[in-house]
Amino acid sequence: MNTREKLKKLIVKKPLTLDCGKVIDNYPIAYETYGKLNEKKDNAILAFHALTGDQFVTGINPVTKKNGWWSYLVGPSKGIDTNKFFVICANVLGGCMGSYGPNSIDPKTNKEFGTNFPVITINDMVNAQYNLLEFFEIEKLFCVVGGSMGGMQALQFVANFPDKTKTAIPIACTSNHSAQNIAFNELGRQSIMADTNWKNGNYSLLDLSPDKGLAVARMAAHITYLSKKGLQEKFGRKLQERDDLNFSFDADFQIESYLRYQGSIFVDRFDANSYLYITRAMDYFDLIKQYKGNLSKAFEKSKTKFFIISFTSDWLYPTAENKEIVIALNASGAEVGFIEIVSDKGHDSFLLDVPEFLKVIKNFLEANYNN
Amino acid sequence: MNTREKLKKLIVKKPLTLDCGKVIDNYPIAYETYGKLNEKKDNAILAFHALTGDQFVTGINPVTKKNGWWSYLVGPSKGIDTNKFFVICANVLGGCMGSYGPNSIDPKTNKEFGTNFPVITINDMVNAQYNLLEFFEIEKLFCVVGGSMGGMQALQFVANFPDKTKTAIPIACTSNHSAQNIAFNELGRQSIMADTNWKNGNYSLLDLSPDKGLAVARMAAHITYLSKKGLQEKFGRKLQERDDLNFSFDADFQIESYLRYQGSIFVDRFDANSYLYITRAMDYFDLIKQYKGNLSKAFEKSKTKFFIISFTSDWLYPTAENKEIVIALNASGAEVGFIEIVSDKGHDSFLLDVPEFLKVIKNFLEANYNN
Repeated sequence: MNTREKLKKLIVKKPLTLDCGKVIDNYPIAYETYGKLNEKKDNAILAFHALTGDQFVTGINPVTKKNGWWSYLVGPSKGIDTNKFFVICANVLGGCMGSYGPNSIDPKTNKEFGTNFPVITINDMVNAQYNLLEFFEIEKLFCVVGGSMGGMQALQFVANFPDKTKTAIPIACTSNHSAQNIAFNELGRQSIMADTNWKNGNYSLLDLSPDKGLAVARMAAHITYLSKKGLQEKFGRKLQERDDLNFSFDADFQIESYLRYQGSIFVDRFDANSYLYITRAMDYFDLIKQYKGNLSKAFEKSKTKFFIISFTSDWLYPTAENKEIVIALNASGAEVGFIEIVSDKGHDSFLLDVPEFLKVIKNFLEANYNN
Repeated sequence: MNTREKLKKLIVKKPLTLDCGKVIDNYPIAYETYGKLNEKKDNAILAFHALTGDQFVTGINPVTKKNGWWSYLVGPSKGIDTNKFFVICANVLGGCMGSYGPNSIDPKTNKEFGTNFPVITINDMVNAQYNLLEFFEIEKLFCVVGGSMGGMQALQFVANFPDKTKTAIPIACTSNHSAQNIAFNELGRQSIMADTNWKNGNYSLLDLSPDKGLAVARMAAHITYLSKKGLQEKFGRKLQERDDLNFSFDADFQIESYLRYQGSIFVDRFDANSYLYITRAMDYFDLIKQYKGNLSKAFEKSKTKFFIISFTSDWLYPTAENKEIVIALNASGAEVGFIEIVSDKGHDSFLLDVPEFLKVIKNFLEANYNN
């Protein structure tokens, strides 16, 4: 925990009224930055992370000792060039990498909040992160960008702060969760809550951890991040270090040991209650409902230039759902570009080395900077 | 358990060598029949159930008190007309409705087998059920039919007993499980094994039951049985008996309470170890590998007439995988019909009231009977 205590944090003094009605203040937002803010302060990009991401976009994450989640895209001379741009990323409200969340200490009890932490929304996350602009004295961002839940935050940011970013790149996302999306998230939550170590969210007080339930939740989510074709090409029916079936419940197939591994490493870096809160925020997100059924109203006050990106094999946030955002933006009169990238890597494409994806972001940013 | 003890059972004396190498004998196969076997004994249809089915195809299941799983299709004057045909259905080997399975008593220990039960395969299931033909003195079936895992059994039956059925109707199935299929089954198994009540499969001895893990496994499977579009039309983002979000982890959305309900009722009728064994058999099924990479070899000794059925919105066993079977049958010189039924109900379509599906089965059977 030493490393976690050294995380950069902005303590937000200003009260924030959450969507649930509760008011929070004096809460930490953990963040990281890459590159340098220029004198004109016009080169800042706010990147939003997805469900299990954090503020460590690129380079080595000091807590996990692994590459940052957007290492393919962000760095010197990369798609988001940190020689040119100043990239800010904050751990979301409800997260477990230093921002205010269920494993923060409740000052009233001096114990971790657990499920006494208020249920938060994408809107709350974005409003909390807005304080970073004031902290860095940035009048207007050059870009907000994010994939999956990060894309939802980008959409919400423009809706909430229509004149605070020049451009926005929502990637592989949606304006609200489909029943199938909610179903998969609920599956993950039920898996965590089914773990006897969960103890109604009070596991930390008892020095327990619902690792098995969290691992199963991660496995379920992981399947949805990959495409059927991608899984087939990578794993098919290949056996795991054996020549024939073992007639047991060991991991005979490579896909089985891969999923078990993904589950097991996840529990080392993620908190089960945060998983509950963040999936809940995703399921609650409904920008259409916020604007009374008319999504284009969310953007009509903004001059932000949009670039929407989807992936052919993403069945979690398919192209059709991304296109609905494009249609709403067109209806609002916004300037908007759209591209569907051909990739077999499923929803995960936005995190992976998909050259065309990396290239179109670089081109969009460079074409719009200094213009 | 009284009702379960009264189930009709054939005790198979003849030894059966399982694919794992173990030999079983004196084992029960629980079965049910509908309609009457005619004098010529040429009107028998062997129906195979899917993962969580049982021998109670139609009418009221005496154990669950609910309608049989194929009540839409099977019955007097229905698609499979029990005024005309004699329908036999057996609980699969490894099942939990009276057939030999992990909750049978091990004569060596006088306790339930649990995970000491041998790992079984689709081939083992079919070989065990073949004994019903001898029991009823049926020289040749009129038809073998089944959906999902039932379809796999139909394919395996023809491969093993090429001259024992006049026709075969494999529905919504595959010749082997894709990596994604294996992944979802592994998710279910890991969910069961993660339940502290599972106790390495010995829960019954301790009067425990891994209900929470089994319920999560069922939820995961249930999502895969429905199409994204079908879920959206049925549930969308509708709230459960409330006007607005509740800002809690209760079931706010109808899809959440639906899934929780599906999980909770499943544990009353199904055994967790059976779930492990039967999903394993599905994952192990590989008719292509059995015939050394040439699926058409599986059918080349048979004159059985095939009718393959798939559904447009089935993403678990999509049309493309069903078509591969058609292609192999064509290559083997078999007589084969194929239809893709338009339905938004996903993989579950074969169990539901899909009129075109019910009609094409009726037409196929009636066109081929007495021919």
